[in-house]
Parts: sequence; C-alpha cells; structure tokens
Amino acid sequence: MRLGVCWYPEQWPEEWWADDVRRMAEMGLTRVRIGEFAWSRIEPDPCRFDWGWLDRAIDLLHGAGLGVILGTPTATPPKWLVDRMPDMLAIDRAGRPRRFGSRRHYDFSHTGYRAEAARITRALAERYGRHPGVVAWQTDNEYGCHFTTLSQSAAAAAAFRIWLVRRHGNIDALNRAWGTVFWSQEYRSFDEIDPPTLTVTEPNPAHVLDWRRFASDEVVAFNRVQTDILRAASPGRDLMHNFMGFFTEFDHHEVARDLDVAGWDSYPLGFLDQFWFSAEEKLRFARQGGPDIAAFHHDLYRGCGRGRWWVVEQQPGPVNWASWNPAPLPGMVRLWTLEAMAHGAELVSYFRWRQAPFAQEQLHAGLLRPDREDDQGAHEARQAAADIAAIGAAGPPPKSVALILSYESLWVTEIQPQGRDFNGLELAYEMYAALRRHGLDVDILPPDAPLDGYRMAVVPCLPIMPEALRGALARLDGPVLIGPRTGSRTADFRIPDALPPDGQLPLKVVRVESLRPGLELAGEGTTVRRWFETLETALPAEESLTDGRPLVVRAGAARYLAGWPDRALLDRLVERLAGEAGLDPIPLPDGLRLRRAGDLRFAFNYAPEPLRIDGLLADAEVLVGGPDLPPAGVAVWR
Amino acid sequence: MRLGVCWYPEQWPEEWWADDVRRMAEMGLTRVRIGEFAWSRIEPDPCRFDWGWLDRAIDLLHGAGLGVILGTPTATPPKWLVDRMPDMLAIDRAGRPRRFGSRRHYDFSHTGYRAEAARITRALAERYGRHPGVVAWQTDNEYGCHFTTLSQSAAAAAAFRIWLVRRHGNIDALNRAWGTVFWSQEYRSFDEIDPPTLTVTEPNPAHVLDWRRFASDEVVAFNRVQTDILRAASPGRDLMHNFMGFFTEFDHHEVARDLDVAGWDSYPLGFLDQFWFSAEEKLRFARQGGPDIAAFHHDLYRGCGRGRWWVVEQQPGPVNWASWNPAPLPGMVRLWTLEAMAHGAELVSYFRWRQAPFAQEQLHAGLLRPDREDDQGAHEARQAAADIAAIGAAGPPPKSVALILSYESLWVTEIQPQGRDFNGLELAYEMYAALRRHGLDVDILPPDAPLDGYRMAVVPCLPIMPEALRGALARLDGPVLIGPRTGSRTADFRIPDALPPDGQLPLKVVRVESLRPGLELAGEGTTVRRWFETLETALPAEESLTDGRPLVVRAGAARYLAGWPDRALLDRLVERLAGEAGLDPIPLPDGLRLRRAGDLRFAFNYAPEPLRIDGLLADAEVLVGGPDLPPAGVAVWR
Amino acid sequence: MRLGVCWYPEQWPEEWWADDVRRMAEMGLTRVRIGEFAWSRIEPDPCRFDWGWLDRAIDLLHGAGLGVILGTPTATPPKWLVDRMPDMLAIDRAGRPRRFGSRRHYDFSHTGYRAEAARITRALAERYGRHPGVVAWQTDNEYGCHFTTLSQSAAAAAAFRIWLVRRHGNIDALNRAWGTVFWSQEYRSFDEIDPPTLTVTEPNPAHVLDWRRFASDEVVAFNRVQTDILRAASPGRDLMHNFMGFFTEFDHHEVARDLDVAGWDSYPLGFLDQFWFSAEEKLRFARQGGPDIAAFHHDLYRGCGRGRWWVVEQQPGPVNWASWNPAPLPGMVRLWTLEAMAHGAELVSYFRWRQAPFAQEQLHAGLLRPDREDDQGAHEARQAAADIAAIGAAGPPPKSVALILSYESLWVTEIQPQGRDFNGLELAYEMYAALRRHGLDVDILPPDAPLDGYRMAVVPCLPIMPEALRGALARLDGPVLIGPRTGSRTADFRIPDALPPDGQLPLKVVRVESLRPGLELAGEGTTVRRWFETLETALPAEESLTDGRPLVVRAGAARYLAGWPDRALLDRLVERLAGEAGLDPIPLPDGLRLRRAGDLRFAFNYAPEPLRIDGLLADAEVLVGGPDLPPAGVAVWR
Repeated sequence: MRLGVCWYPEQWPEEWWADDVRRMAEMGLTRVRIGEFAWSRIEPDPCRFDWGWLDRAIDLLHGAGLGVILGTPTATPPKWLVDRMPDMLAIDRAGRPRRFGSRRHYDFSHTGYRAEAARITRALAERYGRHPGVVAWQTDNEYGCHFTTLSQSAAAAAAFRIWLVRRHGNIDALNRAWGTVFWSQEYRSFDEIDPPTLTVTEPNPAHVLDWRRFASDEVVAFNRVQTDILRAASPGRDLMHNFMGFFTEFDHHEVARDLDVAGWDSYPLGFLDQFWFSAEEKLRFARQGGPDIAAFHHDLYRGCGRGRWWVVEQQPGPVNWASWNPAPLPGMVRLWTLEAMAHGAELVSYFRWRQAPFAQEQLHAGLLRPDREDDQGAHEARQAAADIAAIGAAGPPPKSVALILSYESLWVTEIQPQGRDFNGLELAYEMYAALRRHGLDVDILPPDAPLDGYRMAVVPCLPIMPEALRGALARLDGPVLIGPRTGSRTADFRIPDALPPDGQLPLKVVRVESLRPGLELAGEGTTVRRWFETLETALPAEESLTDGRPLVVRAGAARYLAGWPDRALLDRLVERLAGEAGLDPIPLPDGLRLRRAGDLRFAFNYAPEPLRIDGLLADAEVLVGGPDLPPAGVAVWR
Repeated sequence: MRLGVCWYPEQWPEEWWADDVRRMAEMGLTRVRIGEFAWSRIEPDPCRFDWGWLDRAIDLLHGAGLGVILGTPTATPPKWLVDRMPDMLAIDRAGRPRRFGSRRHYDFSHTGYRAEAARITRALAERYGRHPGVVAWQTDNEYGCHFTTLSQSAAAAAAFRIWLVRRHGNIDALNRAWGTVFWSQEYRSFDEIDPPTLTVTEPNPAHVLDWRRFASDEVVAFNRVQTDILRAASPGRDLMHNFMGFFTEFDHHEVARDLDVAGWDSYPLGFLDQFWFSAEEKLRFARQGGPDIAAFHHDLYRGCGRGRWWVVEQQPGPVNWASWNPAPLPGMVRLWTLEAMAHGAELVSYFRWRQAPFAQEQLHAGLLRPDREDDQGAHEARQAAADIAAIGAAGPPPKSVALILSYESLWVTEIQPQGRDFNGLELAYEMYAALRRHGLDVDILPPDAPLDGYRMAVVPCLPIMPEALRGALARLDGPVLIGPRTGSRTADFRIPDALPPDGQLPLKVVRVESLRPGLELAGEGTTVRRWFETLETALPAEESLTDGRPLVVRAGAARYLAGWPDRALLDRLVERLAGEAGLDPIPLPDGLRLRRAGDLRFAFNYAPEPLRIDGLLADAEVLVGGPDLPPAGVAVWR
Repeated sequence: MRLGVCWYPEQWPEEWWADDVRRMAEMGLTRVRIGEFAWSRIEPDPCRFDWGWLDRAIDLLHGAGLGVILGTPTATPPKWLVDRMPDMLAIDRAGRPRRFGSRRHYDFSHTGYRAEAARITRALAERYGRHPGVVAWQTDNEYGCHFTTLSQSAAAAAAFRIWLVRRHGNIDALNRAWGTVFWSQEYRSFDEIDPPTLTVTEPNPAHVLDWRRFASDEVVAFNRVQTDILRAASPGRDLMHNFMGFFTEFDHHEVARDLDVAGWDSYPLGFLDQFWFSAEEKLRFARQGGPDIAAFHHDLYRGCGRGRWWVVEQQPGPVNWASWNPAPLPGMVRLWTLEAMAHGAELVSYFRWRQAPFAQEQLHAGLLRPDREDDQGAHEARQAAADIAAIGAAGPPPKSVALILSYESLWVTEIQPQGRDFNGLELAYEMYAALRRHGLDVDILPPDAPLDGYRMAVVPCLPIMPEALRGALARLDGPVLIGPRTGSRTADFRIPDALPPDGQLPLKVVRVESLRPGLELAGEGTTVRRWFETLETALPAEESLTDGRPLVVRAGAARYLAGWPDRALLDRLVERLAGEAGLDPIPLPDGLRLRRAGDLRFAFNYAPEPLRIDGLLADAEVLVGGPDLPPAGVAVWR
C-alpha cells in the first residue's frame, strides 16, 4: 500500500516547496494530491491562464519520484465566474441562493456551469493529461458536501421535468405511478410539475423519490462530463473521486461506475461526533472514532470501486468542523493507516501536508504544524511507512459475508421514516458492527452485485428489492438475514399488492409500528425498540416476543427480522447464521477488531484500555505488535 | 348511534366498488363520507366536469342503504387552478408561498379562490343537492390544518385593513385601543397597517390579537360561502365540518354557528404523541391515548354543535403522521367508538375504508388492509356495531359541570404566555381531567352559553371575560372555580383599570410571576409551578402557600385560583366544589373513566392493566362487559 | 449617588403628571429620563412638530427640581418615515426586511435614515439644548438590541466595500490578509466582495471578522452623528447611551469614546434566565440574579465610561421578556441600587415609573402599579434613598485587579468557537466571579488601557493581543494570569508565525482540542473541560494533568493557563496570584459579595439563606445593616 498527502503549493511561498517535497519523500510518501481548489490561481481572469506555478509544482514532485493526483477545481469556481452567471448558484430549501464565499457554490443542473466545468477540465487535461508525473485525476471534490446535491433552482426544475418524461413516458403513467389521485394532485402535463419543496404539508413520497433519483443522476452526469474529457485526454491514468462518510444524498455506486478508483475521506472523530452514536460511545471512542466507522466505509467504497479504493484524505490530528474536535489518541493515525491496508486500500493519503494558518480550516491539523515543524501525524505516518514495509504486500480480501446497501432504499426510509428515529443507514451499520464484533470480514455491496462465492448475506433494510438481488439471494449457498421494511415498496413507492416483503419469503407484513424511546416490546432475551412489524405467516418463529408474536421467522436458511434489533439479538443472529455458514464467529472483547487480507491477519485495539490477544497469536508469525495491544495498538501476523 | 366510514372510490378500480359497498353494509355501517379530495376527478380540466364516476358511486351507496356525506373538495384545488392564479397560495411566516404538492394550498382571504370554491360547491350542490342518497354535506376538510389559518399574503393584508376599519371605525380609536403611543407605533391611516409579522422584536399584542380575530373571521366567512350555497340548494341535509384536535387557530364556535352538526377527527394516539403530555403519560397511554383526550373533544364539539356532533374520522389502527405511530391496544377502536356513543355522538365514521398503498397516507391504517383483507379495525367495528345494538338508544346527556372555553382567550395566552410553558388550553384540559378523574360529566361551553341547569362551573383561564358570562356565573346556583389570568385583559388586550380579575371577585391581582421548571412555591399539600399571582384582597384564603400568601380565596360559592395547580390541589378543589354542588365526586382508579347518557352508565378502562369495577355494578342491569374490565375494556349498564 | 426614573408622559393623561412628579420628588428621585420613544408624538406628520406636551413635561420636571435626561427617539422612527424609505429597514440573516411593528426597525448603514436621525436630533437639540432642566442626553436606545447590529442590506454591503478599501488599501492586500487563496476565494476588486452571509458552508473567518468590525464601526458612526450635534447645541450636558447586558455585537469601548457617561440597563433576573448559567444557578439565584451579573457590568461600564457610569434602567420587579419572569426577592431592588453605589455609579434610574397597561411591555413592573398605587419597587427605592443619605458620599473606586476584555477578541471566538460551548465572554465572567468570590475589587478594562497602579492583571481570553497591552503587562508590577487562546490570532485572523501566544510568553501552543461535555482531562485537584492546549515550553508547570502535561506554566509573575479552568483551579489561581500581589484574598461564603469605595465597605447577600458577617464588622463603624445579613441584605461600614 502506498502513502500520500494532500498539498497546496499555491498556499505557500515557492521557496518552501523544495523542502516540502524532500520531506515528503523522506517520510515514505509516494503520492501527492494537488490542485483541486486552485481555479482562481490557474485562471485568475476569464480565459487568462497562469500555468507556471502548477507546471513547476508538478515537475518538482515528479522529479522527486512523487506521483501526482491532480484535482479538477470545479468545487470552487472563482468569483468572476459566479458574477458572470449568478443563477449558477444552487437554491436552498428556503428558496434562497447559496452564495459565493466558501465552496461548492454551484448547481449541478446549471448547463452554463456544466460547460464551464468542462472547459476548465479540458484545459487541465490538455496541459497535464500526458505528463509523466500525473498518475491519477480526482474529479471535483466531495460531491454533495454541505448538502449541495438538492437545489430548488429553475435549472433543476426544468431538468427534472425532462427527467420525468424519460422515466414515465407520458403524464398518465406518472399519475398512476405516483398515485396523484390522492389529494387531487393529478397533473395534466409534465410542465405542471414542480420540485416537491415548500409544500403546505408533506409532498407525495413517490414525487420525492423521483426528485431524489433525479438529483443523484445529475451528480452522475456532472461527473461524467469530466471523466469523458479526462479519459480521452489522459490515457492510462486512474480517475477517482473522493467520497465522504455516512453520506447518502446521491448514489455512490452510480457515480463510481465512471471511475477507476473510489476514493473517500476518512475523519473518524468527526463522524463519531456528528452522527447517531450514543452519548456513551461518543465519550468512550472520542479519541479513536467508533471501532467500525472507518472500516464500514472501507468495505463500502471497496464495493463502489469494484475492488479499487483509496483513502484520499486521512485525518492526521484534530480537525475543525465537528461540534467538538478532540485530538486522536497517540497511535491512532498509524492505526487508521494500517486498518485501511488491512481492508485492501491501494493508498492512504493524509489531509493535509501542513496546517494552514489562515482561512476556514486553520484549526485542521496537518502532518506539519503551521510553523513547519513535524506534528504528531508526521511521526505516525513515518511509523506506518515502516510497518507497511515490514508487512509487505497484502493478499486479496476474503469473500465471506455480503451486506447489501442501496442508496435508493436509504432514500425511501429518509422520505418516510414513519418513526422519527428510523434510520436505514444506522440499521445497516448496526448489523455491520455485529458481524465485526464476531471477527467476520464483510463486503458492502450494491443490490445488483453478484453474490457468488459469499458464504452468507445480510440485507439490513431494502424497501425496494431489485429482481437481480432476489435471484442472487435465492442462488446463495448460505444463510441470509433479511431486515425489516425489506421489499416493502415498489419502485414507484407503493406498498406491493402482495404486501411486504413482496414475496421474498412466504409471509406478509400486515402492520407496522414505530415506537417512541421507552416504548418497548419484550422478547425472549431481547427488547424491540423503534420498529415492529406484525407478520402473517406459517413460517416457524426462531425468535419471539414474550407474548408469542414472531420476531424472527425462518424459511430454509433465510430469516426475516420483523423489528429493530438490539445488540443481544444481533449477536445471537450473527452467531447462529455465521455458525451455519461455517464462518466460526468469535465474540471479540469490546473495541477489538480483526481483519484478514490474504494470509495476513490484522488486529486493532479501538478500546481506551489495553487488550491481550495472545490467544489469537498462537503459532503465528507476528509481523507487527504482539500479544499485548495498548490503546491504538495494532498487531499483524500470518 | 350510527357507524360510518370514509371512502375514496376514485382511488380504486371501479370493479371493486360493489364488493366494498356490500361489505360496508354487512359490517353495520350506514353512512359513507366521500368526495372531499376529488376535485381533479370531478373537474379534470377547467370547466369540464366528469360526473359519471361520482353519480355511479352515490347511486351504488344509496342502493345499498348507505347514506352519503358528500364533501366539497375545496381543500385540494387542482394544479391547473393554482397555475391560473398563483397568488391564491398562502404565504408562510417567512414570507414564502406555500406551494402546490400536498393539500390546503390556498389563502382564506383570496377573493379569486373564494369565487372558485363557490363555483365548485355550487356545481356539486346543483347536481347532488336533492339526491335522496345524499344525507349531509361536509364543507372543505379540517380548516386550518398544517397551520394554514394565518397567511402573510397581500390579500390577507388588504382584507385585514378593511376588517380593522369595521372594528375600530377610525384610526384614532385604533391607536387608543392598541396603545400605539408605545414605541411610536401610531398610525395615521388604516392603510399604514401591516400584518404583525417579521417585526424586529415582538409586535404589539393588541395588534396580534386583532390579526388572530381577523384570520378566524376569514375562516368563518370562507365556510359561510359554502353553507349559504348548500343550504339553498340541498334542503333538509345536515351541514357539517370536520374539526381537529387541540387546535385553536380559529374560533370553532363561530364556524359551527353556520353548521347543523360539529364534526371532528379523532386520533387519540397521534394527539398524545404530539402535545404537551409528560414522557410518562406518553408511554403509559401510548396505545390507548390519554384517557381524557377523546372525551375532551367530544364534550367540546358537542358544545360547538349545540348538541349535535359526529366523529367524522375515527382512528382505526396505526397512523402515519405522528412522530411515532404505534398500534392501538386490541379493543381500543371499539372502546373509542362506544365512548363517543356515551358522550352523545350521532355518528362514528372510521377513517378510512381501505389503507391506500400509495401517496402520503400509505401508512395510515384503514378498516381493510391494502390487500382488501379485514384489518383489526374491521373486527372491532363489527363488535362495536353489535354492542350498539345491544345497548339501544342512549338517553340525553346530563347537565352537570360546565367548563368554559374561549378561543379568543386562548389567543391571549398564546400571544403573551409570559412564561414559556404557560398554555391556556393545557390548563383547561388539566381541570377537565381532574373533573373526570372523579367521575363527573362535563360540558365544555363557549363563554356566551347560558348556564341554566348546571350544578357547577369551571372557568380555567379566561383573560377576556364577556359580560354575558359574568352574569351567567352570578346567576349560577352552585360553586364556581375561576382560574388564573381570568379577567386579566380587556377586549383591547389591556390590563383593566381595576386590575385583574376586573371586578369579577373582590380582589386584585397586583403581581404575576412565571416560574421556570424547578422553581416551585410550596403550599400546604400542594406545589405551585409555572405561574403565581399575588393577590390584594380581604377574602379568606382556602388554600395558601406555606409562607401564608393566599393561593385559593373564596367569595361565597366562588373560588379564585391564583396559580397553576398541581394534581393534588385540583383533586382537592374538585372534591370540595363538586361535593358542595351535590355531585358526589368519587376518585377513580387511574385510567378508569365513566360517563352517563340518560339512564345508561358507561365505564372505560384506559389503563394498560385490568381493573375491577364490581362496586359500580351493584344492582345494575349490565348490557355490555362486567365487573372485570381488561385493558381497553368497556362496561355499560343501567 | 442620585436616584432617577424613566417616565413616559406621552403615555398618560396629562392630568396625572403633576401627581407623578410630586411623588417622584417625594420618593427621593432627582433625575428623570424621558422622550426616547416619542418620535410619533414629537413629529406626528412629516416636518409637523408638536412640542407643546414635551415643553410642559420638561418644565414641570424642572420646576420640581428633577433634572431631565432627554433621549433622542431614533430607535423608533414613525411609520410615515418607514413608508417614505422602506429600504431603511435592516435585512435579517435570511435576507428578509425586518419590518415596522416594534422598534429598532432601521439599518445603521442607511444614509437616508442617518440624515433623518440627524434631523430629529437637531430639532430636539435646538429646542431643548440649553433648557436649564435638561442635564443630560441619551442617544437612541440600546444600540443593537434584538440583534440589529448586523444587516444584510444593500446599504450595508456598499458601505462595507468602502470600509474594506480604507482598511486594506488595495485588493491584493486584502487577498493576502484574508488568505483568499484558500478555496479560490480571491477577489479582483473590492466590488466583488459581499457580506459573508448565506454562503454554502462557513465563510472565511477573516472576512467575517472584518464584517463584524465594520458593523461595529457603523454603530460608532451612527452614534457620533448625534453626539456631534448634541455637543454643539447643548453645551455642558452629559452625553450618554444606555448599553445592555452580556451584549457583544459592537465595540462598546469605541462607542463610549464619544460619550461622557456610559449607561447600562440592569435586569439581573432576565440575564440569569437568558444566558449560560447552569440549571442549578438558574434556580438558586432565580429571584436575585447571579451574584456577579450586575457587578460584572458595573465594572465593565465604569471602564467604558472612563470612570463615569450610570444604571439607566434598573429592574424594579418582574419583567416581561425573559423565558420565565419571577419576582425578585423582597429587598433585591434596594440591594441592586446600593450595589451600584458601591461600584461607583453616579445614578441609578428605575425602569419604569408606572407599569403600562397596554402594548408590548404591559407585564414589565414599574415603581407604581398600573392602578397608580405604589408597587414593591417604590418601597425599596424609598429605602434605598434613605440608605444613601445615611451612607453619604462614596469615595473613589480602588485600583486592585485589572481584567482585560476586548470586543474584537470576543468576535474571534464567536466566529471560530472550535467547540460548541466555547464562549469567550463566559470565560471572562468565570474569572471575574472567581476574583469576586475572594472579595477582590476588579476593573474591567479595554486592551489599550494603561495598567499603572494595578496590583494584578487577568487576561481571560484575548486571541488578538494589541502591542499596547503587551507593553502594559510587561511593565505591570504584579502577577498576570493569561488565559487560553490569548495571542492565538493576528489582527487578520491568522495563526501567528511563532504560534500562539505569539511570543507573549516563552511557549508555543502546538495543538488545541475542544472537548464535548463529559470528555474530561483529569488534573491534580482539577478537571479540564471544553478546551485544552498542548504546550511546547521549557517553563515550569505550576499545575498539571495527572499524565504530566502542563496546565498552568509560570514565567516570572505571569502564568499561562492552557485549558478551560474549573472552579477549583480558578480559586487556587486567584488565591495564589492575589496572595503574591498582597491583595489578601479571602474565600467568601456562597452568595456573599464585597466591594470597597474609598473607605466604605459594602457587603451584599445574594444567597437565599441568611449569612453572618460579624467577622467582617469587627471594629467597624456600621452605617447600614449589621452582622446578620438576611437574603437580599446589605451592610455598609467603614
């Protein structure tokens, strides 16, 4: 695995550059991402380009043996461009333009801006596409960040109407699909349809789902404009985009189809702070990040990238953007690096080389401090480089458990949670974590992925079940766990005629309930919270409420789970199903996580206490660490 | 009492209709509400009407002996209408149009839309006004739902100015009434006056109160357009509107004056979830609704309808619109039905016949499931029909305790809470519940209702005391409980010269205090929270703080309560006053509620535990149930 | 010290005036503030003035020996003025005009309104500038109240661009200063720059800081328009503005430079309710206000006024504007009055004379009730007048501890809190309170104040350290406590090249962390919460974390505090440093506060329990009170 770093030569005196590059190479880095926010330096005035500084930076890096990952700067169009077409700004939920002054100030649907994005991409590609130092391209930066996928603009409304024509063909078909007879919402023409925003009360969910699909497709189309240009003008280079964490506003699988590599930006502490984790977890793992946060995304983006994936931005210390920003435990930067290796990353690139003393991210740590001294991250990157050398090449990732994640299905539960705390992504994460608490290796896959070779499958919550997945699950030789709400909606956001799960198993969900915190259903050795479904079925119950109602029913090797599971139930199900699959699930101590890569075995201690893993190391060839794992400790053996 | 259901034939294949109607009749239903959201099917294009389907549906129902309640579809104008006059959309608090895409997308003050509403009402009335199958009309649907009463539109502002001219006559009178000398708010002409919105800090409360009165009057006027047409074109039919729960944005008494019947939509679980109830109550009664929620509205709308009232929409299972939506306990649908009977309803109509598998309410249960099978609600409706037959006709409601509720006074405390948790409606509800915890029968009455024949009166919180009520209270032969803030404001939202309660009793409120949670005043056997008033009076104190300050003072049979009461104090006051009134108050077990109807006695168990009521049944002729009341159990005897 | 009151003759029948004025004089009052909201009565129509009533009111007061403080009415322009130039309204954060209907409905940057403000000020000054009864002027009222300092208007944007030209000279300098190379934010001209609002994500912090500075300067300029006129036309009169509590939107030191006297409006109960105090404090001191709230502002505004300061509005009972509004403990109005005297006030003026029975503040107590009877405040004002007479003239305030507060630095932490609960003002308050818990007298000073004569200095949190302060601290002969984040930013909001604290002490802050509630760092006898800084230094640690990292380091008599201190640590530091300074710090019982004024000693009991202070009174000449201090009790001795 390679190490790299994100560097912004335009932000520093040119006389520092040579020293920077020398130290990068000395630190063991071989890849440097540059350029993705530099539009105003590349093109200071309309059509007046200043290539000199970028030529020199790329040549310098190339000369030092550092491969350049060059970013298109389309996430930060300059002010002169915005002033020439102010309606390129997206419109927020309240109907206001989202103004210049930070970044991502553009509307994905604006054709004028798409042309400008193509123009600057082409200019870069023509100049550097065949430069030997440029080994890869990044398109734009963190699509959708700051909730920019959805825009209420006139441009988006117009494009949406065309999209609807393509999807539904004629207006009668749309009316039928959406059920617009309800509340006299019928349309006589596509021209009558608006984005489903600022309505008096909730809009039609099928309308919203199509709006979400449309918005996601606009990201795909925007990205493809760039990949088409780059692929033509820069042959042999990897095309990549850097995705984010726990982000669902567009379909990452679809965007990734046009890329060679799925990148993602890993900020475990910020993600723990900003998402659904309990107060206890936010304290216990405040300096490590939840033990499954980074791994969940590694396994997700490996799937997006069809095996090829990078950590493009790796948190190197405290950041600036979460509600609170503590420092990682000493050792965590190294741990995160080696964990990415364990999951099969080709590259871990730290963000950023040196902390900037100015502008928005001045409290975001770098490998270097603003005074050019090494920060803690630099020490750990060096250690990681040494570890990687000691470990050698990692083998291919194992095929073990497939967990199915569909962005379209996540939109369904976002649009219609039915209980305020129903979060489809959280449910997927919970099931993922349960598998990992038992030492299992997981691939997170799109619903159209083939499942050949997997030993077990988990479908956490997939309201819209594609036919392909039904077939793949039927063919799978191993247990399958199907979570609540799966198969509960057609592609047009209707309850299927046969009731959920729409024939997936011989049962019918005849009633659903959401449960406020504290309203619990007692089961045998489990408690159901948040969600419960009443089943009509002849299938035998494997788990039940104390009043006898079925909670988990079994049909062959498949199980249907009729409620939101607690940890005890998840652990039991994982042990049972993984046991049947012959996967040898072992309950791990709290905070310990394992991962296989070929014949390599990795162990990571996310707990704030030391752990002893001598049992795992019996007869092993230990490459890194040993039987005593301190907090943030790593062991690698074969 | 009749049973009925809400049916949307336009939403289903016509080949299902006959079976639907047959099963309705078989289930014991005799009334069917239809049509209230069907504008786009009645008039698919401007002035092109499609009556065929509605003719057939009405004829079919009529042929099966089911009386039709026909709704005017004005809550859901079609898109073509909105596109022809976009300014018919109401304007929200932030100044934005509330767009098409759900329902209630219209401004009550828009004269163009009023003409359209008259036009479609006239068209329906002319076609079906004398149809023998049509037994009643519903105007529009749930006025004000989704906070649509108030609109910041130009239409509303213009109408408000005219309304102000009518109320105040000349601008000097308005300036005096509002006290606009304060903060140089004086107006030189009515044309200078705007709605009191988006002001820098709080607007003048008298300005806001007039704005609220105006907005309420606009609902009255909008409704009257329809009732005038229907009364002329459909003689002998009941005119009805379906009101909502815990909703105070317009004066329901005023709207109801133009109706024959006050309808309301009863969703006990949703109301418990969405309103002020404690976390404990929200859990204990999660599947029943608070034990006084449905009854409070029954007794309120009986007063609105001058004795005639219906439950137009009865929750038949889980709904879709609350923060969490659990299922009712088995038996609750039947209990709610029989409780409406006990309170004198003429009709209970379930919403809706069949759960729709599409659009916004696809997770709202019906009597039937989306797959056309009976849901739990159907079984309970059948049981209720059998119970009703066994019970026979209920006698007239008793005259016992009168509780006075004034929408205008609720607006006063909404406009000027003075403490963040002062809620006049909640205080009325608390007093109502205390009466019911002692088995008493309550009529909730408007402040201008005659009180002849009542044994006791409760005035929970009536800042603006109409003269008529002062007289009626003085004439009442029985105890009166007057709650805090009563008589504290003139009709122009001023503190009366004589200080509150403005001569109602020989005392002066010389200071008011609001108390944050935790800031408590200890009394003898009670604790005062939220609100306390310092009295200057020679009246003897019946209840006091431990420091001697009076909390309840007595003047003859009347009491003034100088603070927000806790449950202990309310129980004591109810026992004392109802005892004096000879009403024989009996503290009931938690969750048990009673109600008389002629010589019938009803008992309802809202507790999640079984209760034993053998003491109540001694020497009784038991018609339904028995001494052991399970959860959701009902007993009826004479 | 004088007593006064705020009176609104325009709000009352003229036949009441003589009685009002007679009773004021009888009560011991000698100053009356009038006129500040009376524009619509002074100029009912454009350029038609009605001076009669105001002539008579001023003559009446003057005849009774009451000095008039006359307010310019610019906080409440009449409706006719707004209608003539609607764009004089400020624009809120969401881009909407802040409309007429309350007060402060104007934009500080609107040149048309500035001209109108000058016109009405000139009219008043010309008529009353040399009236013998007019002893002082108040400009406007509570600048910034209701968050009116910042406006997103076109007027403000235009003025901001000019302000930026003045500050930065040319656009390249601005780009360098702000670091706009980050995210391609570079500007080619000042015309391209907008206010930093409604941006997609956070704007550049240097951009925001300049915006905040600009907005503050606009308040200064707006005020100066009036003071220039008044100074010329009303020689010998004091010019004053009434500032607010815990308000940081503009630089009060800068506004006060154009005034003779700094006034402020003291509402201890409302401030306790609305600000950061813990739930426990909000209950314990609900009826007193936190024991340091009033004093903090006394000591702050004494600094603003260069020694001359008034309490212009003193809370006389319950108010109307906090979330909850309880009544003060009996005695607190007197206590607050005498406490102002102890801190050197020249005047305490109660707000207001009589409670208004109408308009927005009808639940704000006055000295009199709406029915013209004395309220509790009147009794206590009389008692205070008697106490003041008994005490005699207070001597000059002592020079003891200087605490440095900079509005510019508060803006820095508001713009970049880095942890959600980092509040620079709160940290200053905590340090102030710790000093006061040890009986110390504090002067709160601007960062450019000379420190000669002080025995000790505290710099709670001053990211931007002016050179003058560096020098003053270096020259100070006594201990200095420097809090976290001090010296952490340049004037252009950059991290200094030498790292924080930018050479102030021989140390470098190499990492900062914010800590969510519950994430704590254990120290020896202390716990660090919210904020921690990692130091690189050879200085000895005086306080450390249990893991050895330094928390307080010492350089001579100066200390640097590397985290948010808890109460235990603050107490220890105050005892240590004040001990070194020879100030004799004594830990006081909870709720007791002391203050010196010349040879007078004051003690105030803010606790809800009685306290015994016999130890303090040994050998004293007691002027007021005695060894037993009841709640709200005061003792004065020499």
